[in-house]
Amino acid sequence: MPLPKTTLQLRSLIRRDGELELSLVDEALPQPAANEVVVRVEAAPMNPSDLGLLFGAADMRTAKAGGTPDRPVVTATVPEIALKSMAARLDQSMPVGNEGAGVVVAAGGSPEAQALMGKTVAVLGGAMYTQYRCIAVAQCMALPEGATAADGASSFVNPLTALGMVETMRREGHKALVHTAAASNLGQMLNRICMQDGIGLVNIVRKKEQEDLLRGIGAKYVCNATSPTFMEDLTEALVATGATLAFDAIGGGKLAGQILTCMEAALNKTATEYSRYGSATHKQVYIYGGLDRGPTEFTRGFGMTWGMGGWLLFPFLQKIGPEGAQKLKERVAKELKTTFASRYTKEVSMVEALRLDEIAVYSKHATGEKYLLNPSK
Amino acid sequence: MPLPKTTLQLRSLIRRDGELELSLVDEALPQPAANEVVVRVEAAPMNPSDLGLLFGAADMRTAKAGGTPDRPVVTATVPEIALKSMAARLDQSMPVGNEGAGVVVAAGGSPEAQALMGKTVAVLGGAMYTQYRCIAVAQCMALPEGATAADGASSFVNPLTALGMVETMRREGHKALVHTAAASNLGQMLNRICMQDGIGLVNIVRKKEQEDLLRGIGAKYVCNATSPTFMEDLTEALVATGATLAFDAIGGGKLAGQILTCMEAALNKTATEYSRYGSATHKQVYIYGGLDRGPTEFTRGFGMTWGMGGWLLFPFLQKIGPEGAQKLKERVAKELKTTFASRYTKEVSMVEALRLDEIAVYSKHATGEKYLLNPSK
Repeated sequence: MPLPKTTLQLRSLIRRDGELELSLVDEALPQPAANEVVVRVEAAPMNPSDLGLLFGAADMRTAKAGGTPDRPVVTATVPEIALKSMAARLDQSMPVGNEGAGVVVAAGGSPEAQALMGKTVAVLGGAMYTQYRCIAVAQCMALPEGATAADGASSFVNPLTALGMVETMRREGHKALVHTAAASNLGQMLNRICMQDGIGLVNIVRKKEQEDLLRGIGAKYVCNATSPTFMEDLTEALVATGATLAFDAIGGGKLAGQILTCMEAALNKTATEYSRYGSATHKQVYIYGGLDRGPTEFTRGFGMTWGMGGWLLFPFLQKIGPEGAQKLKERVAKELKTTFASRYTKEVSMVEALRLDEIAVYSKHATGEKYLLNPSK
Repeated sequence: MPLPKTTLQLRSLIRRDGELELSLVDEALPQPAANEVVVRVEAAPMNPSDLGLLFGAADMRTAKAGGTPDRPVVTATVPEIALKSMAARLDQSMPVGNEGAGVVVAAGGSPEAQALMGKTVAVLGGAMYTQYRCIAVAQCMALPEGATAADGASSFVNPLTALGMVETMRREGHKALVHTAAASNLGQMLNRICMQDGIGLVNIVRKKEQEDLLRGIGAKYVCNATSPTFMEDLTEALVATGATLAFDAIGGGKLAGQILTCMEAALNKTATEYSRYGSATHKQVYIYGGLDRGPTEFTRGFGMTWGMGGWLLFPFLQKIGPEGAQKLKERVAKELKTTFASRYTKEVSMVEALRLDEIAVYSKHATGEKYLLNPSK
């Protein structure tokens, strides 16, 4: 079958006047160079990080449908106050989709490229919300025999982020972890990793169903942030695990500070003398997501030995270098259908992904409401 | 003159029922061991860190005077909500005073101790709000010829903190600094160090007089946080200096977050392409004081490559080791009456320091309102 000349691609554009436009465009599909392959993309997850780029700072309650049935266009308004933070992307049509998986339908001349011909591969490459993607062999990972594109669609972002958290814990000298928004796909993966590796993990959730879900997969420490005894529960779990490092997907509100406060309280339970500057053990919260876009607020009642900061997968991978990253990727490939299995509520085509009723569902980032995009559907 | 058997010492006690008590007690004065000396303390600064231990979380507006003219006692109430953070010091009578200076009036048998006999020395030892202090030679620094105890009283905390900020900047790969509460004694020292060493320093103050004071001593970048153009002014100064590290003495409120926001804006002024995660340059704010005890609040509009955290002199000195610390101390001794000169509004005795009208003044931490305690007065 000859390679098509163009590929249909999902784009996000924020205009200087504050209008977000989502649309499908025809993009030229190049012939693969020697070390490249062309992948027919059959599955790409809609992760929070993808939705961040897709919707930008637009208020999706203002979304309007337009265009034609084949080429739908969605528009929405970016509040003026938020437009400033979008300055660097204004008037640029952005391709979307960090990762995905599909079948190699064309390959360049190199033996490495040829070896992938016909194989189902996972790709970390950006611009994956597209029918076909021409990409370097180095950005592909051949899936194990029997794995489908859907099985491999989320091979990178969530698995490497979860492994990256555990690796960060080891490198920075902590012995256990706290994770918020813990019932997410990523959170469930992290539970499976920690159980396998014998690492203490304190899960923070906001709903009874999420507590039940995590306990159901074997989580030992689950604290509900809406419980009146949350601070006591969390402190107890921190004493039990010795966790002094947290990864927070929420960002806004008081949670990050509450975690530091409880860590300090847990450390002071075993303190033998007064230190006016608090415990000398370093307590760290990394904010890696922004499910709550509101301001972060904390009362510094946790001594002077603490840190808060941003954490991102890509700088972390750079820090550990190609060899370190390769080790993590090998573990993902080996445990793709067990530890690193993802679950999706629904598979949608690119046209369906631009329906207002679907956007209303998947834009909420609700636990267990993750969509899988199939650009070849 | 024979050594007295006891020394009058200033003490701070917080009782379990929430009452703070400041008083003067007679403490046994030991004979110096071989490597110790006895210093008659003639000058000790009342630094914010000392006041933190002295008053704890008490509300000094509730202070009441008691005791006798010779042995005054001050009591005040610790609000119940703050009592929890004092748990580890409850019912313990705490000596106060990180540093000070005075004359060596007795010395142990070692040559090092004997060499200090009659000399004026600066001491970093804790419990310096006392008439006499028996202390290891290693914690003393002989002052240069002609320097008085008042000249040397602040030889450690402020000078080493200011030098520690510059050293932290170098070790963590930043090229310029931001400092808040910049008109303080410490802030003025930092200006003199940065001018000498050719380091860019952005000073943040809150009052016109403080701006004038700093410009008067040669500061190039001074931003007033109460000005309507503060964010623009700060961003401009950050572009000019390239500062990506800040030391914040305030702690509470929005300032720490505003600094990160302006750092990101400054970095993005030279950015050539859109990064949805913001600039990849690490931006750091260290909170080293708590002049505003209220909550810290920030809106995360500064990308993902940032950190906020506590910073303290003593862990820093441990990190750089005895040799590193020695180098800094040598510089302090050499430039004691120039770079590291401190100014005080008033000298008070220990009895005077417990007068309510004096407490009302020095407890405010106001710029240019620093007291010097003279326990021998």
